Amino acid sequence: MSLLKSNPCAAIVGAGRTKFTEQWDEDPKAMIGKAGMVALESVEKGFKRRDIGACYFGSFLYQVTNKIGLVHGLMSRELGINVPMVNTEAACASGGLALFNACLGIQSGRYDAVLVAGFEKMSDRQDKIIDDLMFAADTHEFESGYNFPGLYATMMARYIYDYGNGDPKCEVALAQIASKNHHHCLGNKYAQFSSKGDVSVEEVMSSKIISSPIRVMHSSPISDGAVALIVTRPEIAKNYTDTPVYIMSSQEATDHISLYTRKDITSVMATRLAVKSAFKETGLTISDIEIAEAHDCFTIEEAFFLEDSGFYKKGESWKGIYESYESFKGSKHIPYINKGKELVVNLGGGLKADGHPVGATGVRQAYECFKQLRKEAGGNQIDRDVNIAMCHNVGGTGGVATVHILARDI
Amino acid sequence: MSLLKSNPCAAIVGAGRTKFTEQWDEDPKAMIGKAGMVALESVEKGFKRRDIGACYFGSFLYQVTNKIGLVHGLMSRELGINVPMVNTEAACASGGLALFNACLGIQSGRYDAVLVAGFEKMSDRQDKIIDDLMFAADTHEFESGYNFPGLYATMMARYIYDYGNGDPKCEVALAQIASKNHHHCLGNKYAQFSSKGDVSVEEVMSSKIISSPIRVMHSSPISDGAVALIVTRPEIAKNYTDTPVYIMSSQEATDHISLYTRKDITSVMATRLAVKSAFKETGLTISDIEIAEAHDCFTIEEAFFLEDSGFYKKGESWKGIYESYESFKGSKHIPYINKGKELVVNLGGGLKADGHPVGATGVRQAYECFKQLRKEAGGNQIDRDVNIAMCHNVGGTGGVATVHILARDI
Repeated sequence: MSLLKSNPCAAIVGAGRTKFTEQWDEDPKAMIGKAGMVALESVEKGFKRRDIGACYFGSFLYQVTNKIGLVHGLMSRELGINVPMVNTEAACASGGLALFNACLGIQSGRYDAVLVAGFEKMSDRQDKIIDDLMFAADTHEFESGYNFPGLYATMMARYIYDYGNGDPKCEVALAQIASKNHHHCLGNKYAQFSSKGDVSVEEVMSSKIISSPIRVMHSSPISDGAVALIVTRPEIAKNYTDTPVYIMSSQEATDHISLYTRKDITSVMATRLAVKSAFKETGLTISDIEIAEAHDCFTIEEAFFLEDSGFYKKGESWKGIYESYESFKGSKHIPYINKGKELVVNLGGGLKADGHPVGATGVRQAYECFKQLRKEAGGNQIDRDVNIAMCHNVGGTGGVATVHILARDI
Repeated sequence: MSLLKSNPCAAIVGAGRTKFTEQWDEDPKAMIGKAGMVALESVEKGFKRRDIGACYFGSFLYQVTNKIGLVHGLMSRELGINVPMVNTEAACASGGLALFNACLGIQSGRYDAVLVAGFEKMSDRQDKIIDDLMFAADTHEFESGYNFPGLYATMMARYIYDYGNGDPKCEVALAQIASKNHHHCLGNKYAQFSSKGDVSVEEVMSSKIISSPIRVMHSSPISDGAVALIVTRPEIAKNYTDTPVYIMSSQEATDHISLYTRKDITSVMATRLAVKSAFKETGLTISDIEIAEAHDCFTIEEAFFLEDSGFYKKGESWKGIYESYESFKGSKHIPYINKGKELVVNLGGGLKADGHPVGATGVRQAYECFKQLRKEAGGNQIDRDVNIAMCHNVGGTGGVATVHILARDI
């Protein structure tokens, strides 16, 4: 790990996922079970259920949508083990929080290896979920009539107002993000929209308005799915695989749940703080990050990430997005470029095109980076060596954010 | 800490709580805020909000009952801090899990001090909560018509059938637990039933049947409340107070959520496993435990605890309960006695009489032991020196259990 100043806090040695789609015949514990079995079986030198020291789960609306609770007891029966288990809700960052908790569990010295799983089964409640999603927002925002896309629409409208300078390219750039992510997902066999084909910028910009200026094609879909990881102490990772991926930093920060009390609604303070902590811990800068899985619940959030992570300056990401897209459209992967720096974001399609089963997303991001760093991503594998990746998961409109930096053994 | 073979994993240096009652004018974040402020102000040598390195919250039904989620964002605004926060649901053990998570957070080495808070606001949904509580049980149990008291009624009926030997004293003993806990709460000014006065064994046994053989007076009430603790690294605890209480062990275990798949429904395997781990870690035995806060959601669960912890043999606790009660009724505190060993359980009244705002309970148990060990419990303070306490929190019918061993500096 010679590039890196800090020691890893944990290592990923196995990973599994389900396809993200509408899975009408599945229930959450079966989806976790399937993802978990794939993760266990993916560990090359062998990993059994009895090797699991603890389990960390993440989900947002499991009580409301699936009418289940006490996931511990469901999964104790499903897995046939009695180990400590922790279930976390943090809205759309529930998966990132599960991984964060798992890293602290490993760092506590109590466990050699843990299972991390994120899951969400949303399709059963498609008609009502627009209300349920407001559990991720402030009560006053709900009572004043906001829906969840509406909150992001407020952030997007203000961003365009403050930084767009009246230039129509700003709105084009926020549509290009969706086109790019749909393009990236084409080779990802687990993605919800892998068979949809390319989505043009014009198609995004003419799609139905949900909450102006947000259109349906700016938005991540309703999805069902689960993702599981096997996470171990870094010192023993090579007992399980020759190619572990190390978690160099696992960070979380929080901020006001409500837009109306924040100083600034055109950036996400929780992301900024978590990124800052991750760079401080590792000694890395944004220039060292080669690929990132960013939280594009709505395309504006990917633009915020590019600014909150420091890749572009505040208010300038849309110009970089536009120029990068115009330069690289038609390529297999469309990187962001800034003064010679290159960052490829959402290689698997992101929340937009891979899908967004809410609690699974933060874990799926780590899954994607694990696969990319090991060159096992399949049809959407990046076509060059990459060593360092970032995962960025946001809850609500920014009440919480997690940031993980992953690295292969170099 | 000369009595103890192991090092503490954490220390409690401050604690605060609200009264447990129907708090119609409060919301969860305000209740947490009040308990948190009392906890902060209780730290003798000073503790500010900026000293909080992370927050750990526990609640069961906050989404369903209170229509809130992403507690992180609510509390970031309420507390005015941006630190990492983790919110955990584990049914009735949500509070115990919050404390368990906090101990692992401290052991990870990341934080010097954290805030732990459990909360629940149930009265708003009194009419419907009987259904909501089934989120703590298996879906099949719900669909087959069970309600939550019914599940414990099945366990209680089987216990009486297997071990009562047709002796009416068995059922009397399970009523005496309720009388004892109501008696214990009389001096506890925060308890839901402190002003109710004594409840006779006859009153318990003639109270309305909820789900035979469980009567209303075998059952914990619907409550609102919050409890907060300041937990630090043990090495620095004396920077904050001369009389910290050390957490010698923090353990969790899990088991099948469903009664119908368990080997045995007259004990709680998760409790047995967590107790075993706690004794293994500390080198203590049940004889060393002087006081305990046990999970008496229904009185049968306190009887299970006395057997699962090893204080009485399997199937024999009811005899010990009966004899102890007959020997000590009328005393300020009514201990359990077995062959010269003495254990005082639920000095504050337990879930039965102190109240059971679900997610607050596991933290309230640690609060009560902290106060008792420091001789600050007030009207219900035990009248002799006690050094070692155990807290026992169960989720569902035993899908999860946490056990904490607390000790004063000796």
